[in-house]
Amino acid sequence: MFVLNQRLKDDTVEVVRLKLSVLLLMKDRSFPWLILAPEREDIGEIHELSVKDRAVLMEEISLASKVIEMLYNPDKINIGALGNVVPQLHIHVIGRFRTDRAWPGPVWGTGPAEPYSGDELRVACERFRAAFESSHSF
Amino acid sequence: MFVLNQRLKDDTVEVVRLKLSVLLLMKDRSFPWLILAPEREDIGEIHELSVKDRAVLMEEISLASKVIEMLYNPDKINIGALGNVVPQLHIHVIGRFRTDRAWPGPVWGTGPAEPYSGDELRVACERFRAAFESSHSF
Repeated sequence: MFVLNQRLKDDTVEVVRLKLSVLLLMKDRSFPWLILAPEREDIGEIHELSVKDRAVLMEEISLASKVIEMLYNPDKINIGALGNVVPQLHIHVIGRFRTDRAWPGPVWGTGPAEPYSGDELRVACERFRAAFESSHSF
Repeated sequence: MFVLNQRLKDDTVEVVRLKLSVLLLMKDRSFPWLILAPEREDIGEIHELSVKDRAVLMEEISLASKVIEMLYNPDKINIGALGNVVPQLHIHVIGRFRTDRAWPGPVWGTGPAEPYSGDELRVACERFRAAFESSHSF
């Protein structure tokens, strides 16, 4: 049975369940930062998924990128599957701005998360959820 | 017409042309570090590719990961599509080791490349090429 890694659970809020992945929002207002966690047991690498799951994952990455673009209009999308710290497969999809704290470097390990206020987090999460729920029109 | 970005050209050697992407080896012996550059004009983001090209790209990422695993037996594969510096779409596929200079952080921006000797580079490139050319058996 798939159980979300505890570190991912602590650092994020759940936005929506997609076909393959649970879609999470990082609790760091420095970046519009989504994480896709494919709900498959004991998988650490993309190439360990089936060909079919990989194709679905690619479309979920693409959808997450488009939603971030639509809502935040970033200068660049950064996508990463690292897992050096959290071994459960998860894919970062992050909106980047030339003015953000880590530009042009990657965001990982660039400092402590800047927390959303409770209300901001709820609003951001709801905007993302609404965008994904209407995403059949993309 | 697709023309490989000059910075990518300078930092890599070509290993092989796959169906969608040209497969490059970074001239940095610190990591087994491949780059896939989809041969499509004026594309900066994965979601700008067609659905069909995205599915092919996913399989090329997966194949590159498997080849690195087979040849180097790393502790983890890191995959990244950043493009904050080089705007032409390219995907990093990197073998990571608990003992490498950047572990557990990402590799990007962690220091100057450690050059291969001329012979090492040729040998590494040939090993990769042979692995990809026999990859129908994977």
